[in-house]
Amino acid sequence: MTCFGAHPIVAVRLFEGCLKEPSCVNTAAEIEVDERWMRQALAAASEAQARGEVPIGTCIVSEDKLIALAGNRTRTDCDPTAHAEIVALREAAGKLGNYRLTEVDVYSTIEPCAMCAGALIQARVRRLIYGAADERAGGVISRFRICDTDFLNHRIEVQSGVLEEECRTLMQEFFKTRRGRIVD
Amino acid sequence: MTCFGAHPIVAVRLFEGCLKEPSCVNTAAEIEVDERWMRQALAAASEAQARGEVPIGTCIVSEDKLIALAGNRTRTDCDPTAHAEIVALREAAGKLGNYRLTEVDVYSTIEPCAMCAGALIQARVRRLIYGAADERAGGVISRFRICDTDFLNHRIEVQSGVLEEECRTLMQEFFKTRRGRIVD
Repeated sequence: MTCFGAHPIVAVRLFEGCLKEPSCVNTAAEIEVDERWMRQALAAASEAQARGEVPIGTCIVSEDKLIALAGNRTRTDCDPTAHAEIVALREAAGKLGNYRLTEVDVYSTIEPCAMCAGALIQARVRRLIYGAADERAGGVISRFRICDTDFLNHRIEVQSGVLEEECRTLMQEFFKTRRGRIVD
Repeated sequence: MTCFGAHPIVAVRLFEGCLKEPSCVNTAAEIEVDERWMRQALAAASEAQARGEVPIGTCIVSEDKLIALAGNRTRTDCDPTAHAEIVALREAAGKLGNYRLTEVDVYSTIEPCAMCAGALIQARVRRLIYGAADERAGGVISRFRICDTDFLNHRIEVQSGVLEEECRTLMQEFFKTRRGRIVD
């Protein structure tokens, strides 16, 4: 769990300056809910890995109900845009009959890339919860701050570090196994 | 045509520091080719407008052949990710049977947003040519520089300002007509 100046059990929400002056914290019950949904995203990541994809998974939740669940599908679908987040957003919009998803929370095992962070803004999602940071290319905190700028017409509440170790380990093991075999 | 320190007829390619020290320029023949393809993107933008969409169009070209042509489809398809660029990339990948599109050029009437700029990177496209800048939310030059950073594993050659006036006017007229009727 990534904490910024708070007790380790308490995750600070990164939203409208919360990084500097934390005013909102998660309770143990909220953390338990986040971890429960992140386990679903992790299962989708493992399923993606079994298909030869980079093991990243996403689930989309509204009112504590699962709306969409997806792993990466770029190779499976021969589609450069088929990251887990994009696949899940499309499925959720279809299911809810609305291309604005203002009432949903998105759980992703890894910090979304620029494309996916931008898609979350386009969909107007309420909250993004992710596991491990992508320090090389992350579009939320690490490289670009697409989800909470003051010049786009939407901001997303961001929570990082949920089941961080499991999410990171899945990726590290995948790339360790693959190294020397496939060049991506 | 947006020029940086060059003769007005000559457009400087923005790539690996070209902005500061232009070393590559477009010939009149190259400009004619770019304008020809941009007219196709403009036609797709107009077709999107006729469907009630924001008038942005994209065409994807390889070896001077049209591979994909699309306008925005977010409302039409109830899909928050269905910007013209994403729709065209998916179509091109399906048609070419490859989720890496290293040999294609992408023409878009407006500077891509963060989602679409990120998608162009994911697809590893060779070149992006766009018409007018999106100063509020552009992901290429205006707000984020997603297409030519040194920390992502791909860089795209970028050309801006092709048929800039036509592309900008189409958007301005659309929003002028719509103002007061629909809140987006």
